[in-house]
Amino acid sequence: MNVLIYNEFRHELDPNCRASVIYPNGMHAAIAEFLEKEEDISVSTVTLDTIEEITREKLRATDVIIWWGHCHHDDVPDDIAGMVYEEVLNGMGAVFLHSAHKSKPFMKLMGTSCSLIWRESDDLERIWVSAPYHPVARGVDRYFELPGEETYGEPFGIPTPEETVFIGWFTGGEVFRSGCSWQRGNGRVFYFQPGHETYPTYYDPNVQTVIKNAVRWAAPTYRVTDCMGCPNPPKAHEWK
Amino acid sequence: MNVLIYNEFRHELDPNCRASVIYPNGMHAAIAEFLEKEEDISVSTVTLDTIEEITREKLRATDVIIWWGHCHHDDVPDDIAGMVYEEVLNGMGAVFLHSAHKSKPFMKLMGTSCSLIWRESDDLERIWVSAPYHPVARGVDRYFELPGEETYGEPFGIPTPEETVFIGWFTGGEVFRSGCSWQRGNGRVFYFQPGHETYPTYYDPNVQTVIKNAVRWAAPTYRVTDCMGCPNPPKAHEWK
Amino acid sequence: MNVLIYNEFRHELDPNCRASVIYPNGMHAAIAEFLEKEEDISVSTVTLDTIEEITREKLRATDVIIWWGHCHHDDVPDDIAGMVYEEVLNGMGAVFLHSAHKSKPFMKLMGTSCSLIWRESDDLERIWVSAPYHPVARGVDRYFELPGEETYGEPFGIPTPEETVFIGWFTGGEVFRSGCSWQRGNGRVFYFQPGHETYPTYYDPNVQTVIKNAVRWAAPTYRVTDCMGCPNPPKAHEWK
Amino acid sequence: MNVLIYNEFRHELDPNCRASVIYPNGMHAAIAEFLEKEEDISVSTVTLDTIEEITREKLRATDVIIWWGHCHHDDVPDDIAGMVYEEVLNGMGAVFLHSAHKSKPFMKLMGTSCSLIWRESDDLERIWVSAPYHPVARGVDRYFELPGEETYGEPFGIPTPEETVFIGWFTGGEVFRSGCSWQRGNGRVFYFQPGHETYPTYYDPNVQTVIKNAVRWAAPTYRVTDCMGCPNPPKAHEWK
Repeated sequence: MNVLIYNEFRHELDPNCRASVIYPNGMHAAIAEFLEKEEDISVSTVTLDTIEEITREKLRATDVIIWWGHCHHDDVPDDIAGMVYEEVLNGMGAVFLHSAHKSKPFMKLMGTSCSLIWRESDDLERIWVSAPYHPVARGVDRYFELPGEETYGEPFGIPTPEETVFIGWFTGGEVFRSGCSWQRGNGRVFYFQPGHETYPTYYDPNVQTVIKNAVRWAAPTYRVTDCMGCPNPPKAHEWK
Repeated sequence: MNVLIYNEFRHELDPNCRASVIYPNGMHAAIAEFLEKEEDISVSTVTLDTIEEITREKLRATDVIIWWGHCHHDDVPDDIAGMVYEEVLNGMGAVFLHSAHKSKPFMKLMGTSCSLIWRESDDLERIWVSAPYHPVARGVDRYFELPGEETYGEPFGIPTPEETVFIGWFTGGEVFRSGCSWQRGNGRVFYFQPGHETYPTYYDPNVQTVIKNAVRWAAPTYRVTDCMGCPNPPKAHEWK
Repeated sequence: MNVLIYNEFRHELDPNCRASVIYPNGMHAAIAEFLEKEEDISVSTVTLDTIEEITREKLRATDVIIWWGHCHHDDVPDDIAGMVYEEVLNGMGAVFLHSAHKSKPFMKLMGTSCSLIWRESDDLERIWVSAPYHPVARGVDRYFELPGEETYGEPFGIPTPEETVFIGWFTGGEVFRSGCSWQRGNGRVFYFQPGHETYPTYYDPNVQTVIKNAVRWAAPTYRVTDCMGCPNPPKAHEWK
Repeated sequence: MNVLIYNEFRHELDPNCRASVIYPNGMHAAIAEFLEKEEDISVSTVTLDTIEEITREKLRATDVIIWWGHCHHDDVPDDIAGMVYEEVLNGMGAVFLHSAHKSKPFMKLMGTSCSLIWRESDDLERIWVSAPYHPVARGVDRYFELPGEETYGEPFGIPTPEETVFIGWFTGGEVFRSGCSWQRGNGRVFYFQPGHETYPTYYDPNVQTVIKNAVRWAAPTYRVTDCMGCPNPPKAHEWK
């Protein structure tokens, strides 16, 4: 399975940001590291600086894309966002992490504001499994905790998820639908909330389990190259 | 609009239970009191002791039924639970409160376990609006708090709600889908979690607003008497 | 209630197209005519030639927009399509007719290909009510027929509709989800398939009933002006 | 994978019914025959006469149950229907065929009337794939035809399906949501409409493909034994 990780990779280059210490090689490298240990997963990465490497051919060879972006969503070229969007509709899986809720491809796939409330105050987050049967929850206990995370809160401006797999609880008093799934065309989309750049979230074993599960769940079982077209077939049946 | 309130009415008769002090005339009386102040709502009530008053005729004259039960779900006769169920499918609205998640009519309408985790530990509950556009959330701020409630937690064994209008946060660390809606046949169903018998929840202005909203939202716009049958119509169209 | 009808209005100006005879003043005029007879509805119209009349102010004064387009979707300016999209998320209702399945605002709201199969072969269409309880089906019998329509067929590349109110049957052998509803942000969206320019579909009493119902169903009950933003509120609760 | 097929097995024993010629050993035998050719599937069968063989132990050893019933739904003991229902909620998959739409386990899982319209008039049915990405549609072309089937028509009294995989078209003019999926508790449920006893439907290669797909799709990935209970855990987190 070919996984492509896109990471904006700017916070980690800022020496004034904790991300530079926690993820010196970038969050994409941290995520790639645990995914590459899986025998069935092959990983490549791309950052905002190298985003032109995301071509149609590259995407067609990708089973699942993972997307992390935050302050530079607007710098992602429209044509690249559009290609990612179309390839999901063609069947590629997509996992959007944390602040990617406002990324171009996620917003295009949702068709909604994807807005939320947020606060940076070192809250502990407890993430509950609300759909224990879901493949993305496999191997996770009934809840797990992250000692520090950016707080995200409702209302989350998304279409009603087909499955709400996780719901987050924050010490500051907020709740959030932290893990949600949708079918979009032939592709599967998962949103997973943890992963603020100033916390070592992607080193957490439970977070890693969820991301591995999400990748496998989102992997395509059916894929086309032309979902945007409208065929004009002849009448199939002539009445006698 | 005719509203029928069913309340088990046993806790309130037990002098050892706080409910006897908080709701000396029963929770049904407290709910009836604020509903009756609405010009468009006419209320009648029934308890476990008088449950035989729930007849087919009574239900056909009811727009919305409100249901509260807890320790005596099994004492509700199957034929009465079945009539309530069928009349919802015919178009009557239904609002299930708190521990009615395990009542016969609610379980029949959901088709699932309706299980949850729970704890009595005087937690504060903060209830967030996750669907601010929903008519049941009208007049409620982005959240409201109840200083004491029984804790309910995920996973809640329900079919994916069509709308998750409220999500509850508890000081003990739990989250819960506290307000959920479903269409069932021609009828609308709302589940609302607050209302443990040992807290004055039904005197809370926000809770009252939500229940009034839910009643109006669930009121039928279309109603039949025979939804359980399978018609056998002639072929409507003959090909020439 | 203020209804704004957008119609591309090109087929009707083409003397070689049947539309010029059937709808000499445009389909928007035909739709406006029956809507204006309703006491609670006030109508204005706009066409591709006058599309710059669609301003933010105009949309904020609009309760429900009706959209018909076909061969000139690409000529709708992106900023206008974007404003329509945002105002739906803010709470404005939207009814998309027939070939508007590939219009910019509808595709943006769905987040999918919105593709389908099609054929122009004068098929009769029979439209079945699959959700008789839905307000958009009120006043329609269990099915109605249109003696001629363009054939649309599955698969229809949409997110699973929240309600599938109508399913179409065509003499050529196709089926189509002809009436579908979605919540998008604070706004309600309805798609209704009939209305090819070469048939007098918008003079059909059942079609008129459905469009009137859809307009009333989609009318906003809650509306904001800033749904795209992400508030950053202070911590609401400090633990003692 | 262990598949258990329940078939009422009464029509086939009636010498006046075509079923006795088409399925001399019962529809369960015809279905078992093509399933047993799959290396990963092991089949056992049970009929109304031997229904007491359906025990809790038998169900716990079953991955997916297939259910066909028609005129003797009421003869299925309530406790057996209840066990099937609970084991689906615990995680067992279930595939309901044709007239099983009114069987006790299916109705209990849906929570609705499951009513439809019907007619026996030797209509041809054309079944369209409306969700080509769905695993149950794998290997099926964009539609397939059955030269004769009982006509089923909308409205079908089910909760909105999570996926509508197939939609049927009948020569007599009806449409029907012929293949629908739902999650119920930890179990997956698929309904598939073809299979009237007087047609050789279960010998059709496309129908066999769909049933094989449905069995594999419904196979459990997570299973418990106690989904009906409500745990009462201690407070997980004490605030310092």
